[in-house]
Amino acid sequence: MKLNIAVLPGDGIGPEVVEQALNATIAVCEKFNHELNYKHALVGACAIDETGNPYPDATHELCMQSDAVLFGAIGAPKYDNDPSATVRPEQGLLAMRKKLGLFANIRPVTTFPSLVHKSPLRADLIEGADFMCIRELTGGLYFGRPQGRSEDGNTAYDTCVYSRYEIERIVRLAFEYAMQRRKKLTVVDKANILATSRLWREVAREISKDFPEVETEYLFVDNAAMRMIQWPKSFDVMVTENMFGDILTDEGSVITGSMGLLPSASIGAHTSVFEPIHGSYPQAAGKNIANPLATILSAAMMLEYAFGLKEEAELITKAVAASMDANVVTEDIASEGVKPSSTSEVGQWIVNYI
Amino acid sequence: MKLNIAVLPGDGIGPEVVEQALNATIAVCEKFNHELNYKHALVGACAIDETGNPYPDATHELCMQSDAVLFGAIGAPKYDNDPSATVRPEQGLLAMRKKLGLFANIRPVTTFPSLVHKSPLRADLIEGADFMCIRELTGGLYFGRPQGRSEDGNTAYDTCVYSRYEIERIVRLAFEYAMQRRKKLTVVDKANILATSRLWREVAREISKDFPEVETEYLFVDNAAMRMIQWPKSFDVMVTENMFGDILTDEGSVITGSMGLLPSASIGAHTSVFEPIHGSYPQAAGKNIANPLATILSAAMMLEYAFGLKEEAELITKAVAASMDANVVTEDIASEGVKPSSTSEVGQWIVNYI
Ligand SMILES: CC(C)[C@H](C(=O)O)[C@@H](O)C(=O)O
Ligand SMILES: CC(C)[C@H](C(=O)O)[C@@H](O)C(=O)O
Repeated sequence: MKLNIAVLPGDGIGPEVVEQALNATIAVCEKFNHELNYKHALVGACAIDETGNPYPDATHELCMQSDAVLFGAIGAPKYDNDPSATVRPEQGLLAMRKKLGLFANIRPVTTFPSLVHKSPLRADLIEGADFMCIRELTGGLYFGRPQGRSEDGNTAYDTCVYSRYEIERIVRLAFEYAMQRRKKLTVVDKANILATSRLWREVAREISKDFPEVETEYLFVDNAAMRMIQWPKSFDVMVTENMFGDILTDEGSVITGSMGLLPSASIGAHTSVFEPIHGSYPQAAGKNIANPLATILSAAMMLEYAFGLKEEAELITKAVAASMDANVVTEDIASEGVKPSSTSEVGQWIVNYI
Repeated sequence: MKLNIAVLPGDGIGPEVVEQALNATIAVCEKFNHELNYKHALVGACAIDETGNPYPDATHELCMQSDAVLFGAIGAPKYDNDPSATVRPEQGLLAMRKKLGLFANIRPVTTFPSLVHKSPLRADLIEGADFMCIRELTGGLYFGRPQGRSEDGNTAYDTCVYSRYEIERIVRLAFEYAMQRRKKLTVVDKANILATSRLWREVAREISKDFPEVETEYLFVDNAAMRMIQWPKSFDVMVTENMFGDILTDEGSVITGSMGLLPSASIGAHTSVFEPIHGSYPQAAGKNIANPLATILSAAMMLEYAFGLKEEAELITKAVAASMDANVVTEDIASEGVKPSSTSEVGQWIVNYI
């Protein structure tokens, strides 16, 4: 098979972890005789520094021509404390989401037995939790217009908009994932307050008829935020709109204690983007200490989701598990008494295993 | 002193728990020689059943004439699964918030040493956590217009609006609370995305100049949702807009494991409302098993916040702590081997103590 991928390392620890994920991908492609073509491009703060644009046209072109995008992280401290600056790294993220039509962000929330003790939750609550958050990524408050200030500057407004079509495609996707899993879908909204949520619920009710085997439940967002902490094992697949998803997926990412291991996929019409859920973590940049596993697992997700290469994806997942069993891990997840390995040592171990 | 209060028991377990809170208030007023006048009124599902309106005019009149409102809970199962029904109990809540101008919802998040084992969080993370969530309650997405559907029904929209004035009064209140506590304020927003959040941050920055002693930090809502789980002790006072506050205050309420004990206050221009944060819990209604402590502590908040009666409030708080020490508690918080008491037994014990 021929795989054309765009590699967007971004900022902070992005380049270091992406390098390891790319090496793992190269290794697995060699092993299975796939032809892997990859090209690098700029995104985020480094793209602003070089071109003035956090998502340069050249980067977009490359993404559009690729079958999948392997992404690191964006964000740099110098932009952090000024959310109203005119050019910011996050704008690159938003532009990429919109231009590539990345409508569904998928985040598996899984626990790793050896890391359960790192979870802020009681072990009995989190052990064995395994669910998937699906967040709408190109609509809602993030992109709704009008947005801005009144003429006198004393009033500000944002708009949340959703069309039936936007809801349909992501809810359908969520049902399809539920069918491949434990057949339970939780639709999260605030239908007792928001008109957009009432449309979400209406559309989800209609589509649920096409999936009679799936048990569908509707949960208000405030209840979902509570239940994720009190009873994470009660979820299988959860789907929600953009802003609620921003909050809930981040909540989901910390309950497992394995933030450094969680990959994500953003599904688009033309191409999809695969990235670790941790951020650019600038404090660790350039030190060769960042955990590359979430990005390596994102590469596994890419092989499976973008190319249907299940066996290849599984080999990477197995290699990651083996590296943990062998205690070849970075300091963030090293158990007491275990000497931490560097980012590149972990990556190299995984390449050798493959 | 003369205290005029409106008593709105509402639905589900509301009437049972409010009765005990009222008894405690009567007892403390007798002891301190205050004249307590109280009148009951309908709100919620029971008000719909009786008058067709979840917040009848007569109830509003009574609230306006009172110095404070003691509130139970609203909501009934028959309305639960139809968020688009034309008359719903929650509309009573929203109407009350808007008509009484209850702009700030205040929820202390405190841990009780004897209940730490009930928390979903690891004991070392939650033990000793003590913060206050302040949620804006009459603006934002909840009340912004336009809200609705396009003519063809295929698009829905909501509007988030905030004026400088709305932000100013609640942020100032938050700074004042911070001054009385550990002098740390966390302003939660999504200023990297929302125009309303950028106005929040701008106003908060301005007001912070009047409180140089307070350490002010700005946190994106997704980060706040994570940090509340990972590091709840890092918060002192948190202030945020309505929708984010809905999610974060509920998240805050479950991390302590003492949901049945948490009171709240909604501060208004004319009068303020005091209520437990747990809901109407219809499954337990009429069984005399519901935990009255959150409502009794809400009565204590009322004495302190609405009437400045600190000593009286402290006596109630002391009585509640004593009832727990004496193991006179309802089944939700009874330790193993302890015979649970009924709602009215707990209430009576507290009255006797006072
Ligand atoms: C950086 C920010 C704009 C972004 C978002 O809110 O979507 C981030 O929080 C995320 O979840 O990817
Ligand atoms: C019942 C509902 C409208 C309400 C809200 O969203 O404000 C509730 O969740 C709350 O927090 O008081």
